[in-house]
Amino acid sequence: MIARLSPLIVEDAVTRALKEDFGDAGDITTAATIPAHATAKAVIAARKPGVIAGVDAAFTAFRLTEGAITVTIENDDGARVQKGDVILSIEGPARGVLSAERVALNFMGHLSGIATATAALVDAVKGTGVKIACTRKTAPGLRAFQKHAVKCGGGHNHRFGLYDAVMIKDNHIAASGGIAKALAAARADVGHMVKIQIEVDGLGQLEEALANGADVVLLDNMAPSDLKRAVEINKNSYGGRAVLEASGNVTIDTVRAIAETGVDVISSGWITHSAPNLDLGLDFIS
Amino acid sequence: MIARLSPLIVEDAVTRALKEDFGDAGDITTAATIPAHATAKAVIAARKPGVIAGVDAAFTAFRLTEGAITVTIENDDGARVQKGDVILSIEGPARGVLSAERVALNFMGHLSGIATATAALVDAVKGTGVKIACTRKTAPGLRAFQKHAVKCGGGHNHRFGLYDAVMIKDNHIAASGGIAKALAAARADVGHMVKIQIEVDGLGQLEEALANGADVVLLDNMAPSDLKRAVEINKNSYGGRAVLEASGNVTIDTVRAIAETGVDVISSGWITHSAPNLDLGLDFIS
Amino acid sequence: MIARLSPLIVEDAVTRALKEDFGDAGDITTAATIPAHATAKAVIAARKPGVIAGVDAAFTAFRLTEGAITVTIENDDGARVQKGDVILSIEGPARGVLSAERVALNFMGHLSGIATATAALVDAVKGTGVKIACTRKTAPGLRAFQKHAVKCGGGHNHRFGLYDAVMIKDNHIAASGGIAKALAAARADVGHMVKIQIEVDGLGQLEEALANGADVVLLDNMAPSDLKRAVEINKNSYGGRAVLEASGNVTIDTVRAIAETGVDVISSGWITHSAPNLDLGLDFIS
Amino acid sequence: MIARLSPLIVEDAVTRALKEDFGDAGDITTAATIPAHATAKAVIAARKPGVIAGVDAAFTAFRLTEGAITVTIENDDGARVQKGDVILSIEGPARGVLSAERVALNFMGHLSGIATATAALVDAVKGTGVKIACTRKTAPGLRAFQKHAVKCGGGHNHRFGLYDAVMIKDNHIAASGGIAKALAAARADVGHMVKIQIEVDGLGQLEEALANGADVVLLDNMAPSDLKRAVEINKNSYGGRAVLEASGNVTIDTVRAIAETGVDVISSGWITHSAPNLDLGLDFIS
Amino acid sequence: MIARLSPLIVEDAVTRALKEDFGDAGDITTAATIPAHATAKAVIAARKPGVIAGVDAAFTAFRLTEGAITVTIENDDGARVQKGDVILSIEGPARGVLSAERVALNFMGHLSGIATATAALVDAVKGTGVKIACTRKTAPGLRAFQKHAVKCGGGHNHRFGLYDAVMIKDNHIAASGGIAKALAAARADVGHMVKIQIEVDGLGQLEEALANGADVVLLDNMAPSDLKRAVEINKNSYGGRAVLEASGNVTIDTVRAIAETGVDVISSGWITHSAPNLDLGLDFIS
Amino acid sequence: MIARLSPLIVEDAVTRALKEDFGDAGDITTAATIPAHATAKAVIAARKPGVIAGVDAAFTAFRLTEGAITVTIENDDGARVQKGDVILSIEGPARGVLSAERVALNFMGHLSGIATATAALVDAVKGTGVKIACTRKTAPGLRAFQKHAVKCGGGHNHRFGLYDAVMIKDNHIAASGGIAKALAAARADVGHMVKIQIEVDGLGQLEEALANGADVVLLDNMAPSDLKRAVEINKNSYGGRAVLEASGNVTIDTVRAIAETGVDVISSGWITHSAPNLDLGLDFIS
Repeated sequence: MIARLSPLIVEDAVTRALKEDFGDAGDITTAATIPAHATAKAVIAARKPGVIAGVDAAFTAFRLTEGAITVTIENDDGARVQKGDVILSIEGPARGVLSAERVALNFMGHLSGIATATAALVDAVKGTGVKIACTRKTAPGLRAFQKHAVKCGGGHNHRFGLYDAVMIKDNHIAASGGIAKALAAARADVGHMVKIQIEVDGLGQLEEALANGADVVLLDNMAPSDLKRAVEINKNSYGGRAVLEASGNVTIDTVRAIAETGVDVISSGWITHSAPNLDLGLDFIS
Repeated sequence: MIARLSPLIVEDAVTRALKEDFGDAGDITTAATIPAHATAKAVIAARKPGVIAGVDAAFTAFRLTEGAITVTIENDDGARVQKGDVILSIEGPARGVLSAERVALNFMGHLSGIATATAALVDAVKGTGVKIACTRKTAPGLRAFQKHAVKCGGGHNHRFGLYDAVMIKDNHIAASGGIAKALAAARADVGHMVKIQIEVDGLGQLEEALANGADVVLLDNMAPSDLKRAVEINKNSYGGRAVLEASGNVTIDTVRAIAETGVDVISSGWITHSAPNLDLGLDFIS
Repeated sequence: MIARLSPLIVEDAVTRALKEDFGDAGDITTAATIPAHATAKAVIAARKPGVIAGVDAAFTAFRLTEGAITVTIENDDGARVQKGDVILSIEGPARGVLSAERVALNFMGHLSGIATATAALVDAVKGTGVKIACTRKTAPGLRAFQKHAVKCGGGHNHRFGLYDAVMIKDNHIAASGGIAKALAAARADVGHMVKIQIEVDGLGQLEEALANGADVVLLDNMAPSDLKRAVEINKNSYGGRAVLEASGNVTIDTVRAIAETGVDVISSGWITHSAPNLDLGLDFIS
Repeated sequence: MIARLSPLIVEDAVTRALKEDFGDAGDITTAATIPAHATAKAVIAARKPGVIAGVDAAFTAFRLTEGAITVTIENDDGARVQKGDVILSIEGPARGVLSAERVALNFMGHLSGIATATAALVDAVKGTGVKIACTRKTAPGLRAFQKHAVKCGGGHNHRFGLYDAVMIKDNHIAASGGIAKALAAARADVGHMVKIQIEVDGLGQLEEALANGADVVLLDNMAPSDLKRAVEINKNSYGGRAVLEASGNVTIDTVRAIAETGVDVISSGWITHSAPNLDLGLDFIS
Repeated sequence: MIARLSPLIVEDAVTRALKEDFGDAGDITTAATIPAHATAKAVIAARKPGVIAGVDAAFTAFRLTEGAITVTIENDDGARVQKGDVILSIEGPARGVLSAERVALNFMGHLSGIATATAALVDAVKGTGVKIACTRKTAPGLRAFQKHAVKCGGGHNHRFGLYDAVMIKDNHIAASGGIAKALAAARADVGHMVKIQIEVDGLGQLEEALANGADVVLLDNMAPSDLKRAVEINKNSYGGRAVLEASGNVTIDTVRAIAETGVDVISSGWITHSAPNLDLGLDFIS
Repeated sequence: MIARLSPLIVEDAVTRALKEDFGDAGDITTAATIPAHATAKAVIAARKPGVIAGVDAAFTAFRLTEGAITVTIENDDGARVQKGDVILSIEGPARGVLSAERVALNFMGHLSGIATATAALVDAVKGTGVKIACTRKTAPGLRAFQKHAVKCGGGHNHRFGLYDAVMIKDNHIAASGGIAKALAAARADVGHMVKIQIEVDGLGQLEEALANGADVVLLDNMAPSDLKRAVEINKNSYGGRAVLEASGNVTIDTVRAIAETGVDVISSGWITHSAPNLDLGLDFIS
């Protein structure tokens, strides 16, 4: 089972979303047209096949809007669903169900879209042992949720921010006076619990990075033939010590070829910044 | 010129995004590898053609990270850019430029993606007089930004939330006892500055909605032939009094035909919930 | 039944008020003088006749202070009470009851004062069909509560802020180049779910506003004879299409005469910014 | 000069008020009708005579809305103004001036109303040496501002909350087993920097309170003759050691008689919870 | 029983601490290694003798992390414990117990350290009637908790901040033109519920302070012989009217001698700003 | 130069501290006794030798209290100072200088205490190449500041929270079914940028941890002879691949002997949770 996000994070984000949707006047349509004591049974179901993420947020949206609503999880985060499959069963005051509907669906549709896109890449590399990872290219303020959705889709998380791992890119290398110096500076400055990654633009830089003890090397936009060579260099000359990550031009069509080069990780910005929503809907049931 | 978002809203969201990326430890890579007094000149430029949105957020990301950075807007919100066009010129302490880069790009890439998707629909209906509008299907916590991006793309905003307009759907109608009762209940309950929209599923319901004074009627998933008939009914029998909005199955391929039916507004959830990022990048210049 | 405010809004404001009253040291009097396990029964009752508003906030003040307190609503928001009528019955730990008392009374006294003032105007125009509406002249940070209190008193809400409707005043007209241009600019810029109001200073401007499609016209400080003429112009020349709102010099003494001119809405700043508290008190019962 | 409120408090409350008024969509009227580069000169002036409070909040409202606006204080907090007197001169982008206008006026009108009401009581007791004080009967979330306004009107602040002084009332006395025990319990429990007040219902209780070392005694709803007797008892038998405060039925008509009994302080809830707004307006000047 | 801190304050601080420890990714160790449905029984016990404070915060840390955890208080705030004594018994989902452990211990260890240090001073002056008080030298953001811990240790609270009592020091005296003027200025400006303290540097200043009605006099860094003389002056010439507080060089070795001079209060910054943690640990029990 | 904390983090914490000290009433002493236009020059200087940390927070405290104050940094974070050395020179409105003094000193005294304690350990192991590291035993809400202070003292940061590295302890091992399983579970679950540490209680467990690829091994409370043996095992049998960290009973007296065993890192909770304040003071200068 995929570990749940902290309820503290979920409540904060859902509260913000509910306030965004309710404003000061609240749900004026429902207040005018739905009797205060009317109750409803409803389901949230998939209208397209996909992988689910965001169940906790949806759950929380209903609970914070109306404490008397009960929500039953039929398909939890990480579940693969078909068109028509029910994800949540909801029962309680009709006003609350309708008022929270859009926020619940916005979280689940967005996050399930990410999980579904991730799963497509994961499926495409099945059997190669490669991990599909996300990046920091996320919607502002929603990173914890999007990173969680990537895990729901079978992917893995890259660093969460600037704070939890070192990633040395071309500008850092230039300012430090080269790969060796940049790696040494990082090693001296950061704590012993921090991994250090460096981005290289070719096999020459790769050798320098490996020789200077990089934990992870990012191979950006390299041809599969070069990636294969990089894997051999790492294995043969450096005991396979470093983790090799490929990125750039990763699509459902290219990912298998990249995976077959033997790299350890393939990262994609697309799965978080451009995955389309998964189509979900809420329907009243009688 | 498109009106700017309130700086209070921009600062809140950008602060949240920066904290999300900095965590408690900050940008440990830059701290280790970039000298404290190094300066940099950089540009944010388009790597694909598109329409820009989010300039204020990017601007604010640099300013809040490092007060000594100056940012010049070369292409403001709403501008149509080609591959290679510079959007922002940035100059100042190199650490700050690098630390704020990702947050700035995440805002601008996401919002420019929405503006670009909106503009594609707007272009497709050019000359018909139809307005392209968004919905409430937005990323939680980012609605004000996404609604603004829609305007940057030449679109118009639908209601912002549950609070600023009435939208009566099937469940509301059923609970109220029919279209006439639902419209009457809404009219009696909400203030005189609030518009009332009702969703209908066919021409029969449309007549009832118009006869009972709906300000706006949502025609969901109707065939173009029915939409055309709806326009005629509104014009011929009700003095064109109501605004007619079409939604459902709106794509770049279908939107022109829908527009040519004569409806006033076409709304799309896709432009906010599923538009891919516009590819932008930051490059140091010497 | 008047729709309740979102619990998210109520909790935020009540939490702020409790923190304001408790500070860091808390209720030092109660801590010193009331045994930790003492319990109490109390009522909040009216000491003057009036209309109740703010029951939810009072309820929440007790609950957030001490979870073990139970509160029973005897007279809910919108109820008309006489001197001595009980509004809430409260039972639980005596410390909590005493510590939350002032915050609960401050909300209810203030909001019931507004409801009572509103109801006096509503009563005065009974039978005319006129709606009494509030304005944006509210206590900073308490608008959602004050607008709710107006509804409790039988009034209606005007726009909630700058964001949910257009209100064109003299400075906007001057800057736009006249009424026709201002209305056209607004119509082109705002979404199709937004109503447009314009303030006019005489019957000439009224004609121009009506001819250019204003949804609502504000007739500020006009004599009843002019208001009557305005109603006729709207009905006879424009099919009664626009909503007419009168404001200025609205008192309990003048409001009936204004209402009898046939305008649709009368708005008053006084009911929110200057209504005196309704006198309520908490008493222990044995 | 009356000490200013902490800018941290002012910014928080003004930010909250501006967000309340701007919502997510901002000032849609001004965006549509006022050119982005138009500038304006305006004044905020009194439309009725009164005492000013809230200048800082108004100032901050303009600054936070639009940094390019300059505000000049013509009449600062505490100033007595006549109809027509200018309080603030404002110059800058017209959009910002118009967007911030209502928030600025809501703060100043409300707080100046309190200052004006306070000043009326202060004037009425001139020469008696009595201090006019406020209570904790304040609008939730605005206590710091209202307490400040009382000082602008020449009044004094009572305790700010439950935390900064002890106030023993009938329920505390009953639960403690009498006045002597309640005072002893408070003295033992609270720090040496905290004053202890006790409310008494007659001269018998007063003697007991004075004999047991109360710092301040609240004489609630006592007739002037009893108040005079209380003053004598305190002076003759207890060296005038305690501060005597009268409350209850304090109006502009009764306050002089109460003051002339020789009490030290007269407190009024009315000046904060029921004072009507002072009428102020913003006008463009050419 | 020592009064509990307001739950609003506790929840805020514990939420902040939990977010600080969880970040966006949460407890990644526990998620990977502890089965989701595993349960645990554990105790928090003392590993050194001391006085307990912070039980509420620990309790809240477990509850906010995982609602299904039950916590039983075996030794409440203020209890004196020996090595091995159990303070809290905890039972529930193992993940939650482990995830909340550090935050719970950080609060309790820190606050119990303060209570223990306070109690050592309190014990040392036993029988003298002197009160041990803290200062405003506290860890930023934790003052309410540290002041509470002082009370758990048998100490008393000095003023909580700049806002709840006057403390006139040398710079204030100099700027006011002397002790008499400073005291007069303070008396005129602050409300009747506020105590006024003044710091003096010798017996001459003490006399002036007493003659001008100071409520409390701070005798900083005076030799015991001078303190004794100060006590006599206050008693013999001023009826013992002022409270005398000694500070400066207060240690477990010096405090008894200071207490025996007859001062009323001895204040120490050390008990809040430098008390070492009390060693507590969480152990699973089978 | 030690990298500065993000200004966003500093402003948040300093704002919280200032509000904690100002409350709603503000600095009532200064308001009463210091003329509004008085100016002051002051210094913050060391009263004991030590290492400085927290200069940014102090700087920010003055700036947020009174924008017109200028602060010059004479000894920045990380500087070793002697008694009497000036750290900050301050000039501006006297009220602001006095009002912000305590918050500025509370941050700097607390953080410099941590830096000073850290430096003492760092000095004691000089020449051994061992890094001194902190733990998560920090004051709630102040972790970023305390971790920064450790760096100012020449120490290194351990993981910042539960989120940025894996730390497997006895309970995790037991629940997972042993060291090998726990390490495998962690490796499979966490991303490729995350380091994995495991705590072992003896040399047998150490071998198992090394054989299963732990990145870092925590050797808790082991005798120096065992630590030396652990270093040899890691070097001789595992290529020195893992980082070895010793903890437990680390004092200024024991740390050198631990360091000389050859471990890579020594961690101490004491330097954050129990370091006494560094004595600093603010003095006006003429």
